[in-house]
Amino acid sequence: MREPTPRPGGRTARNREQVLAAVSAELAENGYDALTIDTVAARAGVHRTTVYRRWRNVGGLLADVIAAAGDLDWQPRDTGSLTDDLTALNEEIQESLLAQPSIAAALIAVSFRSSEAADGLARMWAARYAQCEIVVERAVRRGEIPADTDPRALLIAATAPIYHCLMLLRTPPDPGLPARAAASTVTAARAGAFRAGAPLHPGSPSPPQ
Amino acid sequence: MREPTPRPGGRTARNREQVLAAVSAELAENGYDALTIDTVAARAGVHRTTVYRRWRNVGGLLADVIAAAGDLDWQPRDTGSLTDDLTALNEEIQESLLAQPSIAAALIAVSFRSSEAADGLARMWAARYAQCEIVVERAVRRGEIPADTDPRALLIAATAPIYHCLMLLRTPPDPGLPARAAASTVTAARAGAFRAGAPLHPGSPSPPQ
Repeated sequence: MREPTPRPGGRTARNREQVLAAVSAELAENGYDALTIDTVAARAGVHRTTVYRRWRNVGGLLADVIAAAGDLDWQPRDTGSLTDDLTALNEEIQESLLAQPSIAAALIAVSFRSSEAADGLARMWAARYAQCEIVVERAVRRGEIPADTDPRALLIAATAPIYHCLMLLRTPPDPGLPARAAASTVTAARAGAFRAGAPLHPGSPSPPQ
Repeated sequence: MREPTPRPGGRTARNREQVLAAVSAELAENGYDALTIDTVAARAGVHRTTVYRRWRNVGGLLADVIAAAGDLDWQPRDTGSLTDDLTALNEEIQESLLAQPSIAAALIAVSFRSSEAADGLARMWAARYAQCEIVVERAVRRGEIPADTDPRALLIAATAPIYHCLMLLRTPPDPGLPARAAASTVTAARAGAFRAGAPLHPGSPSPPQ
């Protein structure tokens, strides 16, 4: 195999990768309080003035770590069924929050202290939910759910319980939750619960089977 | 009206109330970094040694604020319909997170820094969800949903989107979300999505209407 030709800016790109990897590692291992430009520069093996010049402060580093995570060429799974696509998505979320150490969990924690991190995460999540809308569009095309289903409302309903249980309620991880949250959301979606003009009050009670 | 007779321990109880109110106010206004035994004692108008003796440190104060919030004689609304009960619950959650300043949001933020606060909040939420199970039991008794519905799974599904949107995604408040999250959860519950032995994969796709 030939050596790849160095692109212009190759060293800059490599520096950025090393610095952002160092931020993630420091954050996950030692937390926000220990995070400084100096510890990051030392861990990345990059001169501290390079880090100061490009990222200015810890907030700048955090915003760029989150932006880089959003840049990844990520796509939701395409299993052929809405329930399985959502289960795969939830399992990916659950794994990322339970990883030891978890960069995702560390960034969520930091978002309560740094407005740069909070804004960055909000943008990243908006982009990620937009990337997931194709899962809902495919289900509509297969005839699984009504055509006027609101993709974002459905995706929030499917994924919110995973974040809620692990990050706020801090209940022990439940390996069945990703599939159950997916299945109950699909049941609601099929019945039209996420249709753009869905009535707030489902019709009169019907007896349970 | 007669003056209420002072109970034994009345001053201690009054001190606790003043100190915990001062913690909540300091936290919501100035944040965790500014929270010290001294600022709390000064704001409460209580001697600092009293605070040190009873609560030891900031972690002890936070744990007691959360425990006191859980002590409240709170009960979920009883409107006569599951959708309306869950909507009322979600509206209460949304209001508490949007209050300016919000003690609930401040405590969630602190839970990412203080393990005492994290443990205290986990206990408080466990108790609060248990208190809400009656909402599901009443719906079962009215025949709205199947008898073997898992109350906790239903309550998590109904409430998680409110916390998720406001505390993690940080999207602008959506006044319709409490009712929509309630309605879609009830639709799923009626179709048996939260039954204890619910199949993970709902049956074959049915065409949308």
